[in-house]
Amino acid sequence: MAGSSFGSHFQISTWGESHGKGIGVVVDGCPAGLSLCEADIQKFLNRRKPGQSRYATPRKEDDKVEILSGVFEGQTTGTPISLAVFNENQRSRDYGEIASYYRPGHADYTFDQKYGFRDYRGGGRSSGRETIGRVAGGAIAIKILEQLGISFFTYTRAIGAITIPQSANDLLSNYKEAQEQTLANPLYMPDADSSQKAQDYLEECMKNTDSAGGIIEGIITGVPAGIGEPVFDKLDANLAKAIFSIGAVKGFEIGDGFLAASATGSKSNDHFSMQDGQVTAVTNHAGGILGGISSGAPIIFRAAVKPTPSIAATQQTVNKSGETISISIHGRHDPIIVPRAVVVVESMAALTLLDLMLENMSSQMDYLKNFYPSNK
Amino acid sequence: MAGSSFGSHFQISTWGESHGKGIGVVVDGCPAGLSLCEADIQKFLNRRKPGQSRYATPRKEDDKVEILSGVFEGQTTGTPISLAVFNENQRSRDYGEIASYYRPGHADYTFDQKYGFRDYRGGGRSSGRETIGRVAGGAIAIKILEQLGISFFTYTRAIGAITIPQSANDLLSNYKEAQEQTLANPLYMPDADSSQKAQDYLEECMKNTDSAGGIIEGIITGVPAGIGEPVFDKLDANLAKAIFSIGAVKGFEIGDGFLAASATGSKSNDHFSMQDGQVTAVTNHAGGILGGISSGAPIIFRAAVKPTPSIAATQQTVNKSGETISISIHGRHDPIIVPRAVVVVESMAALTLLDLMLENMSSQMDYLKNFYPSNK
Amino acid sequence: MAGSSFGSHFQISTWGESHGKGIGVVVDGCPAGLSLCEADIQKFLNRRKPGQSRYATPRKEDDKVEILSGVFEGQTTGTPISLAVFNENQRSRDYGEIASYYRPGHADYTFDQKYGFRDYRGGGRSSGRETIGRVAGGAIAIKILEQLGISFFTYTRAIGAITIPQSANDLLSNYKEAQEQTLANPLYMPDADSSQKAQDYLEECMKNTDSAGGIIEGIITGVPAGIGEPVFDKLDANLAKAIFSIGAVKGFEIGDGFLAASATGSKSNDHFSMQDGQVTAVTNHAGGILGGISSGAPIIFRAAVKPTPSIAATQQTVNKSGETISISIHGRHDPIIVPRAVVVVESMAALTLLDLMLENMSSQMDYLKNFYPSNK
Amino acid sequence: MAGSSFGSHFQISTWGESHGKGIGVVVDGCPAGLSLCEADIQKFLNRRKPGQSRYATPRKEDDKVEILSGVFEGQTTGTPISLAVFNENQRSRDYGEIASYYRPGHADYTFDQKYGFRDYRGGGRSSGRETIGRVAGGAIAIKILEQLGISFFTYTRAIGAITIPQSANDLLSNYKEAQEQTLANPLYMPDADSSQKAQDYLEECMKNTDSAGGIIEGIITGVPAGIGEPVFDKLDANLAKAIFSIGAVKGFEIGDGFLAASATGSKSNDHFSMQDGQVTAVTNHAGGILGGISSGAPIIFRAAVKPTPSIAATQQTVNKSGETISISIHGRHDPIIVPRAVVVVESMAALTLLDLMLENMSSQMDYLKNFYPSNK
Repeated sequence: MAGSSFGSHFQISTWGESHGKGIGVVVDGCPAGLSLCEADIQKFLNRRKPGQSRYATPRKEDDKVEILSGVFEGQTTGTPISLAVFNENQRSRDYGEIASYYRPGHADYTFDQKYGFRDYRGGGRSSGRETIGRVAGGAIAIKILEQLGISFFTYTRAIGAITIPQSANDLLSNYKEAQEQTLANPLYMPDADSSQKAQDYLEECMKNTDSAGGIIEGIITGVPAGIGEPVFDKLDANLAKAIFSIGAVKGFEIGDGFLAASATGSKSNDHFSMQDGQVTAVTNHAGGILGGISSGAPIIFRAAVKPTPSIAATQQTVNKSGETISISIHGRHDPIIVPRAVVVVESMAALTLLDLMLENMSSQMDYLKNFYPSNK
Repeated sequence: MAGSSFGSHFQISTWGESHGKGIGVVVDGCPAGLSLCEADIQKFLNRRKPGQSRYATPRKEDDKVEILSGVFEGQTTGTPISLAVFNENQRSRDYGEIASYYRPGHADYTFDQKYGFRDYRGGGRSSGRETIGRVAGGAIAIKILEQLGISFFTYTRAIGAITIPQSANDLLSNYKEAQEQTLANPLYMPDADSSQKAQDYLEECMKNTDSAGGIIEGIITGVPAGIGEPVFDKLDANLAKAIFSIGAVKGFEIGDGFLAASATGSKSNDHFSMQDGQVTAVTNHAGGILGGISSGAPIIFRAAVKPTPSIAATQQTVNKSGETISISIHGRHDPIIVPRAVVVVESMAALTLLDLMLENMSSQMDYLKNFYPSNK
Repeated sequence: MAGSSFGSHFQISTWGESHGKGIGVVVDGCPAGLSLCEADIQKFLNRRKPGQSRYATPRKEDDKVEILSGVFEGQTTGTPISLAVFNENQRSRDYGEIASYYRPGHADYTFDQKYGFRDYRGGGRSSGRETIGRVAGGAIAIKILEQLGISFFTYTRAIGAITIPQSANDLLSNYKEAQEQTLANPLYMPDADSSQKAQDYLEECMKNTDSAGGIIEGIITGVPAGIGEPVFDKLDANLAKAIFSIGAVKGFEIGDGFLAASATGSKSNDHFSMQDGQVTAVTNHAGGILGGISSGAPIIFRAAVKPTPSIAATQQTVNKSGETISISIHGRHDPIIVPRAVVVVESMAALTLLDLMLENMSSQMDYLKNFYPSNK
Repeated sequence: MAGSSFGSHFQISTWGESHGKGIGVVVDGCPAGLSLCEADIQKFLNRRKPGQSRYATPRKEDDKVEILSGVFEGQTTGTPISLAVFNENQRSRDYGEIASYYRPGHADYTFDQKYGFRDYRGGGRSSGRETIGRVAGGAIAIKILEQLGISFFTYTRAIGAITIPQSANDLLSNYKEAQEQTLANPLYMPDADSSQKAQDYLEECMKNTDSAGGIIEGIITGVPAGIGEPVFDKLDANLAKAIFSIGAVKGFEIGDGFLAASATGSKSNDHFSMQDGQVTAVTNHAGGILGGISSGAPIIFRAAVKPTPSIAATQQTVNKSGETISISIHGRHDPIIVPRAVVVVESMAALTLLDLMLENMSSQMDYLKNFYPSNK
């Protein structure tokens, strides 16, 4: 098990800590011949960069990516692509206080229990900055998938109790406009009204030195039927792991998700019919996956994200001397991480899907015979 | 990627189809010196066996397990443990009709798309019988974990809209009694009242030739702090994959789960205090996991299970000739699979936890020095 | 790490002990749509079966294989193929003596050190019977590769100091005849003269209650250029592991092998020329692999096999009470295992090659675009 | 399969090309609490650095390593260690000629066949510079193993036909002196006489614009009994893969190696006796491994390295236009790579051994009970 690697065919291995020399990722298994430059990756990193709105930390981080290997004359070579974002200023500021106690809702205590000590500067490896490597790798996966006709649309479905009224199906029927609106929205919400309410709610949270959570929804279209392995490496199982491996995610569902538990079979089953010569699901309660394998219908999933644990409000905790103490966490923290996490969710979904699409290329004997014809 | 293998250290590889010669599992990486016999495994298989109540298929399947390798003189040898449940009667009955169309809510269509054809007898590899291998492997994992002081309590939280009123914390405070009541309950529900209402609801579903879904909750106690890898192989991420790999699961959450999305940080963070010389979380919104690593608090998770897709009510679908047709699925199907799936969820959780506990044994340099002292 | 699994795409997981209930293998990742029956596998198992000549143990073992899953209506389904050879008579004979001491050249001592105890009946898991699972899995790999135009020719190059005079190139120029002669030869040697001398040598070994070793050579033809990954999963590196994982192998080489160490670059490099419009290596010192990747030339490799460690001659060893003692191992042991190991070597080579051929299917972006065209 | 990753528990993932921005490695699974600084790694890199003698390329490469992550306050944190050697001058010189044809003995042709094109600058990914990542990762493995009492001694056994007269056992009896002499020798040979003859031979090769190969031998002492998995992940099998994955290696053997093929069982078996209360092998034909598991005796292995393929002598090859041409490769090439490869072999052996030692920590139930005692 390589705790910092993800994927079997298209594999990423991430490294780096919040306040170390940098953050990076090695992408192995990328097919040769993909045209790739830093701008392809930077545009995804910019979506998770801080400072995009007043609801994200005002810390200035440019997060400029460098390609260190694996690309020659503008094309991927088939060998590992090493990507790095070097930290501009590794401040040797005093972290003494944070080093001495365990912040509630953070991984301080569990890291100490696991490793005996921890890099406490800005959360070290457990910082959200770790996701830079995921997004950089995901950007490449998305570029590949786009060339295969697959599109991703990921957005904020809910912030606190404010949920957009549109269903995923509604948004699909108005795909392009909804996507543009989302990318232009400071909270990555595809509904102006909800966005305004959410901003009011966030202002109140900030006034109360508190923080907020929310729900991210993703839609993947253009996925051919047949992707996913039938038992443990189901497409939905691997998506669940991928999304749940993002810090702060506390729930994941596909299609009707938890609502399916209270439905009946006659309401939950998606009937099939022939449309344009294609077997088509009339409804999409399943979220595009049956028995762990894509059906050709849009894949729809949701992730629940907990509120930012770093809050200025007074909290009780324990210090390393074993004393119960009161703390208040200062610094420039995001009152909500949901908007910045949208692109991380999208990246992890793309990495998962691409990996299973590569796996699927050897699922039938005829595929092998077509691929190696000169040898018959 | 081995689609039918799960785990890195304690690994299971399952095989078999619903109506083939049998179902089995190879367990690799089991430590030597565990006392093991068939009865240890059979008692778990009996919990998923059909025919335990009128809310499960009345098909008669004994599901008697045989140990084919890996155990010598009553002890595991450290080498692969091969377990098999041979099917008693492989009926050569006529499956012609089912072979010709795609059942809604089933994997018929997606298997055909992936593999070009499918073993249509009773669902083949996509049948719920595939989980026999998981439960057999899980039984061994649970036996090991019990010897390390770890306990599993898994039960039906909801059937349809009927939810037990007790929280996981309530049940924990009354652990032994709740567990006994659950094992004696035909729906594996720890609340008699809810169970009665659920049975009424199921009777109605059956009358309507319809089916029901529900929610399974699991509590794991005694897990030491420090289990789980910090980035991709987080304990919650691997649990999410494990549980989501069970057919019919549509949602998964840890601790407060989706509710965390609408909470604020001050409500969602679990404060720490010293109790009996131990750092202890005062509340457990996190469900026992912080930053992907266990904190020592009970691990609490839930899975949403969709209604059984096989229903006798008329449904529309497509046949292999590309015609839209109406069907009604007959046969002895479970009106609900939740009660039988409880032990499957428990098994997958145990396999996940044990695997990460083995991984954790090399997380500190001091552990290596203690383990290999003669060589210093 | 799964100690009893091999391969990433086409993966085998073996189980079973010499004197347990049986030996088996689960093959995962086999493409759907391969026609497969038990006879396809049995013919390979028959080549490793005891009792084929007076130079193999006269123990009667039929080693009859059963397909337990993964094949439907004569075709592989894409899901795990479970294969088993059940032991006919599990004799409860007395193994007391062998249990009490460590046989020189065997794994008795190392198993005890690793696991605390061992299944001592016939060597348990470390018995040569473990290779049944490899040959059964290899038979499927070979059947697939044959359909892609790839052929295997594996034979005994040397027994003791008796080496066939023909080079691999000589045999290639007379392929069909050499292969037929080999399959008909009791020692699987492609040279009648050498075979006779080897038999004389073996008779002498047997008279002296001693045993013999030898060298196995394999030639793989029809392998397209481009197979193998450039760094750690080189085709030759994976072959080396595959062949070295067979008990009793002590050396492995590709092409000129150890002779290359004393050659000069001008003698060792294979020049290229155009032949029939194809880039062709004029010589084949490299054994068909450059930089870990197949060049299209025949792949040629050799494995050194040590003498059977079970000999009736008196040997000194230690018993479990820590006493130095003298022993003499009786029973029906092979005076040489080389002839029976030929098919094991061939099987492991096939498993390695197929696995890397599947990996190679996603090495170029154009391959993905061709495979998923409907999505562009 | 991740072609550029090695190891399951202690895993390295390498990246980089000869003339790209740099070469690096991500080390995942390193236990926390190892004291580590750049100098620990640099001393190993210096052993493979060019320019150490007149028998290596005079190219000036400092190969200065930087630790980019995973170390905090001088200790490893348990999270990925990213190491990089940035190239000082990426010359934009003209590689036009080399780009247009396939050098004999190199991977030019096979890379083009696999990926459709290649980074031809200095061999790109197939360059020997790729081994920088292996040595950097190996340095950490060796530092860990030293703390567990394990030592490595690796040296040049032969250059061309000149072989040192001492056996591995001879060198072991004079360990310290032999090791010091080796590290001081320009060819890493532990015998002054042989070294002189080898230098004469190399001068002659250079005069003839030719190159030489050789044999590297490694001895590992202090390895506890019980390391290695019994079937596919045998210690010798994984060593074979590790060593064979180094470019230019054409043969690998353990203990008596190919000589075992012509021995008899009575000569090949190592008898056991009790020495100082320990079961001890009286001889070491096996090279310290029985049934794939370490016996406690020194592990002894050899690798055959082919002559450097880049030679100035005229060679025939094919260009990309499909013409047969004559070439002569100029530039500052090593007339022999064996001395610089010694530390690469040592690194790969250490990575293999450490990985299996971590795996072994969960081989017995008692080990788990000792490790997790608070939970009983």
